Amino acid sequence: MAQKITYTNEVAAAVSEAVAAIQPKQVFVLADTNTEKIARSIAGSLAIDGAKLIVIPAGDVNKNLESLSAVWQALTDARATRHDLLINVGGGMVTDLGGFAAATYKRGMPFVNVPTTLLGAVDAAVGGKTGINFGGYKNQVGAFAPAREVIISSVFFKSLPQTELLSGYAEMVKHGLLTSAAEFRRLAELDILAADDETMLGLLRTSVQVKEGIVAQDPTEKGLRKALNLGHTVGHAFEELAMERRRPVPHGYAVAWGLVAMAVLSKLTAGLDSETLNRLAAFVRANYNPASVNGPALSVTCDDYPTLLSLMRSDKKNADADHITFTLLSAPGHPLINQVVDAPTIQTALDITRDLLGL
Amino acid sequence: MAQKITYTNEVAAAVSEAVAAIQPKQVFVLADTNTEKIARSIAGSLAIDGAKLIVIPAGDVNKNLESLSAVWQALTDARATRHDLLINVGGGMVTDLGGFAAATYKRGMPFVNVPTTLLGAVDAAVGGKTGINFGGYKNQVGAFAPAREVIISSVFFKSLPQTELLSGYAEMVKHGLLTSAAEFRRLAELDILAADDETMLGLLRTSVQVKEGIVAQDPTEKGLRKALNLGHTVGHAFEELAMERRRPVPHGYAVAWGLVAMAVLSKLTAGLDSETLNRLAAFVRANYNPASVNGPALSVTCDDYPTLLSLMRSDKKNADADHITFTLLSAPGHPLINQVVDAPTIQTALDITRDLLGL
Repeated sequence: MAQKITYTNEVAAAVSEAVAAIQPKQVFVLADTNTEKIARSIAGSLAIDGAKLIVIPAGDVNKNLESLSAVWQALTDARATRHDLLINVGGGMVTDLGGFAAATYKRGMPFVNVPTTLLGAVDAAVGGKTGINFGGYKNQVGAFAPAREVIISSVFFKSLPQTELLSGYAEMVKHGLLTSAAEFRRLAELDILAADDETMLGLLRTSVQVKEGIVAQDPTEKGLRKALNLGHTVGHAFEELAMERRRPVPHGYAVAWGLVAMAVLSKLTAGLDSETLNRLAAFVRANYNPASVNGPALSVTCDDYPTLLSLMRSDKKNADADHITFTLLSAPGHPLINQVVDAPTIQTALDITRDLLGL
Repeated sequence: MAQKITYTNEVAAAVSEAVAAIQPKQVFVLADTNTEKIARSIAGSLAIDGAKLIVIPAGDVNKNLESLSAVWQALTDARATRHDLLINVGGGMVTDLGGFAAATYKRGMPFVNVPTTLLGAVDAAVGGKTGINFGGYKNQVGAFAPAREVIISSVFFKSLPQTELLSGYAEMVKHGLLTSAAEFRRLAELDILAADDETMLGLLRTSVQVKEGIVAQDPTEKGLRKALNLGHTVGHAFEELAMERRRPVPHGYAVAWGLVAMAVLSKLTAGLDSETLNRLAAFVRANYNPASVNGPALSVTCDDYPTLLSLMRSDKKNADADHITFTLLSAPGHPLINQVVDAPTIQTALDITRDLLGL
């Protein structure tokens, strides 16, 4: 399950080295319509003759069986073997779907991830989770399959909208909360939108290493890895509610709101200190305003609670459809996995979260 | 990758024990329209309340994305978690497809295989290969995922047509060829159609242990496992040619013919003795007549050679689309993997094979 991670802003050189190490006969570069240009430039820079571009439509709604089939079909048409290589160039949608396509094509061909978004770099591209949405659920089918290498760079972020950068930053703040009070505080006070390429690369390295350390101990999420689910049980429910209303919100925004709900639950049931909760709520309110005019909007009322609880119950990390389990914090750096919380307490936490965030 | 294999003719008891060991909240039983009745009886015998039956249409043509989606959808509709259990009851089509569905549903839920055909028991159900056909190729997408347990029994075989029994027996003969001259000779002289349940269970145990021993050393087919591919490079090509003509032949028949082609290639290039080749050709001609009136028919002419070679080239075990590699035998019990043979020699071997078999 070991996964090589390279931090560099010399992307073309790093990709060429990865290809040289794997020695495929054919190289395929997968992109979506957002990253096609970057992918074309990477494909063009390879010493290998004729890397083939595969392009799927952008957007989480296209992270589906149809796009997956299109990738399998393109590999089949080119007579790709399981010794060839797929390079996934894009955000989490591309690396998740491309990773799953590679993991299952002829029962597994190697793949390399080149995340082009902050969220992809700190989360999706690393750690071996691949998959697609199915039946209305996010990542409902997939596989644990590590990329042969992940090439992490900050050079692609300049062109990202603020919303995208902040979306990725929510996962970095999550990693901070899993590390220590000091690290969380440092991240909550930092202005990510002002960071230059090299500062960003350093931040990425620190953040990804938190995830790497946890995944190495529990690659298939039997236990400890659930710590990375911090904020995601409620976050996914917010995200799916927004999707059902056909007003999707960025993953990281939903995670940011979910982190606040997690902190409220942790305060109510696990002894988390008020200072951490208040600092987190203030940070999220300031940066992830659910009602912001330019950003995504989500409004939640008490009438939505049964839907939200039902979504939490069917979350794939939930072992038991009769109970809802969370990863909580007794303090920053001290996650508690498999915490069962009863429905009335969850509803109370949702009340408080809505108050804190204006959700 | 360890896989528990239970040999028993007390199937209901063995399935109940497997369920008790895994302790799922929900149990799903997958069958095709051929095995629905057996599956219903197994589901009914479980102590657990309300095991849910999922039925897909029978036949290799239905080992496709549509049936796979139907299984994922049924699991989703029932809110199955990754701690629930799927029991696959059927031939290789059901255990391959069900295994892949389980391996990828929420990135992996446990599954138990109950093969109901001889071919499934000695081959498909054991060893962790799962998958579906795609884009006109057999098992083009799939995963290496071991069943939590395989329950092998001979009680289901009584109702199988002779063609089915012989189809499975071809894989047992392959295991014999991989073991020793004596074991191959024993199997070539045995009348499998006359074996009673207990004799058959003993034969199954001996045969499956050959596969188990090889898979344990190389679960994901990096090297040694390719020995199990004996006869399959040419066999798959025959099978796919027949499929293209919409006159499908049973897998084991194609394998039997492929074994003869392998033995011819082994004699031409790897020093296999004439006695083994002749014994094998006589056995296959007597039992797997390609032109038999009641059985499957396949006729091959020189005009089909380019198609056959192209199918061999795109076989998923073939590392390099420019060359065709085979598993050959220098003698019974002595497989040679990754043997490259040039096209003229393959064509000569096809000529000789057609002569030997009347193909």
